[in-house]
Amino acid sequence: MDEILQDDERLDYLLAEDLRIIQSPSVFSFSLDAVLLARFAYVPLQQTGKIVDICAGNGAIPLFLSARTNATITAVELQERLANMAERSVRYNGLESRIRILNDDVIGIAAKIGYEKYDTVTCNPPYFPAHEASEKNLSEHLAIARHEIHLTLEQAIQSASELLKQGGKAAFVHRPGRLLDIVTAMRANRLEPKRIQFIYPKEGKEANTLLIEAIKDGKPDLKVLPPLYVYGADNEYTEEVRLLLYGQNG
Amino acid sequence: MDEILQDDERLDYLLAEDLRIIQSPSVFSFSLDAVLLARFAYVPLQQTGKIVDICAGNGAIPLFLSARTNATITAVELQERLANMAERSVRYNGLESRIRILNDDVIGIAAKIGYEKYDTVTCNPPYFPAHEASEKNLSEHLAIARHEIHLTLEQAIQSASELLKQGGKAAFVHRPGRLLDIVTAMRANRLEPKRIQFIYPKEGKEANTLLIEAIKDGKPDLKVLPPLYVYGADNEYTEEVRLLLYGQNG
Repeated sequence: MDEILQDDERLDYLLAEDLRIIQSPSVFSFSLDAVLLARFAYVPLQQTGKIVDICAGNGAIPLFLSARTNATITAVELQERLANMAERSVRYNGLESRIRILNDDVIGIAAKIGYEKYDTVTCNPPYFPAHEASEKNLSEHLAIARHEIHLTLEQAIQSASELLKQGGKAAFVHRPGRLLDIVTAMRANRLEPKRIQFIYPKEGKEANTLLIEAIKDGKPDLKVLPPLYVYGADNEYTEEVRLLLYGQNG
Repeated sequence: MDEILQDDERLDYLLAEDLRIIQSPSVFSFSLDAVLLARFAYVPLQQTGKIVDICAGNGAIPLFLSARTNATITAVELQERLANMAERSVRYNGLESRIRILNDDVIGIAAKIGYEKYDTVTCNPPYFPAHEASEKNLSEHLAIARHEIHLTLEQAIQSASELLKQGGKAAFVHRPGRLLDIVTAMRANRLEPKRIQFIYPKEGKEANTLLIEAIKDGKPDLKVLPPLYVYGADNEYTEEVRLLLYGQNG
C-alpha cells in the first residue's frame, strides 16, 4: 500500500460509501461541505448521465457521487498535486471506468470537454477573497483551494453554465454571506436558482453554509428546504449528519 | 363600544401587546406574517426615532411596534376603509400621539412626508401577482391588499428606500419564492440585504415565509438567522410563536 501514498498523505475511509480517499493535512482534506453538496445535488442515475465536478480537490465529491449514480463523472482540478491524489484514489477504489480526473483549469474547460453536454455540475469552490490568503500562513496548495486566487465565484458559475445542457443542474456550496453574489451571477449566466438549503452549526445559531441548486434556463420558482443542523445540543453530530458520514450502520 | 365598529367588524385582542384592533373577515384581518415582521424589524427605541409602515392595512404592524418603541410611527395605507379601521384602532388604544395614519398611495409618499428622514420602514406588501386576483372570489378590499394591483414589489422597495436615511433599515416580509426579486430590487435601490430569516410551518417542511432586512447604503454582509417554526409536531403553535402572539403569560 505504501506506494500509493506520498509524504504526509493518509488513506482515509469514506464510511457511508465504503470507499477510501487519499488526504493530506498540509495539501488538502475534504470538509463536511463536500459531503453535504454530494448529498444535496440532483444527479442523473443512469449510465448515460454525465456529471462534472469542478474545483474537485482530492476528488471527494466524485467519489461520494459514484456511490449514488452509475453516470460518468468528470472531475476538473487545476492543482497537479491534488489531481494526482484524486487519480490515485480513483484507481485505489477501482472506479477508473466511471470517474475521470482532469488536471486542468476550470476557466474555459467547456471548450475542451464540450459545451452544453452535461446533466449536472457540482462545485465546492474557493470561499475566500484572494487578498485574504496572504494574511494567513497556508501552504500554496491550501491557499489556492480556499481562496479565489485562480478562480472567482463568477468564473466558476460561468464555467458551470457553459458545461450544462438546457435543463441541467448546477449545485454549489458556499458561505451564506455570498448568497446575493451567487444568485446574481447565476441569473447572469442563465442559471435560475431553484432549491436552497441552509446549514446551521446548531440550533439557535446563524447559518454558516449554503447549498444552492439552479437549473439552466429554468423558470423562477425558488424553494427553501428544511434547515440542516450539524451538531445537536450535546455537541455531537446530529442523526442526519451521522448518516451522511457513517451510513446506516454508523 | 358599538359606535367604533362598522358592519362585520370585530374588536380583536393583541394579547402580547395588551392592545385591541378592529378587524373584519370580509375587509381585512392581519396575519401571523405581520406579527413576525413587527418582531423581526430593528426599531429605533427613543422618542425622536421615526418609523414608517407602508401597506399598513388595518394598522396591525404599527400597533405591534408601538409596544416595542417610543418612536413615532407613520402608517401609509391606500385603501380608505382600511386606513379608517386603523385610525379607529389607534384612537381606541389612545395612541394618537405616537401613531399617525395616512390614507395615501405608497408610490411617491416620500415626496409628501419627506425623503431620507426615517430610521426604519416596515412593509408587509401584497404577495400575489395582479393577474391572479381575478381568478379568486375576493372582495375588492382583500384583492388590493393581497395582490400587486396598485403597488408592485419593486415600487414598495423604491418607496422604502426614498423614505430611509442613510443607514436606515427596511424590513419586509414575503414568500421565499420572491427572494431573488426582493434582493435584486433592494440592491437596485441602495438597500443592502443584511439579515434574512426563513419561517417554516413545521419541521421537515419547506419555508413558506421570508423576513428580510436591508440597510440603506450598507456594506454587503448577509446573515441568515436561525429558522423559526410555526407549528410543533403536535400541530400546536411552538413556544416561540405562542410568546409572540400571547406574550409571557399566554
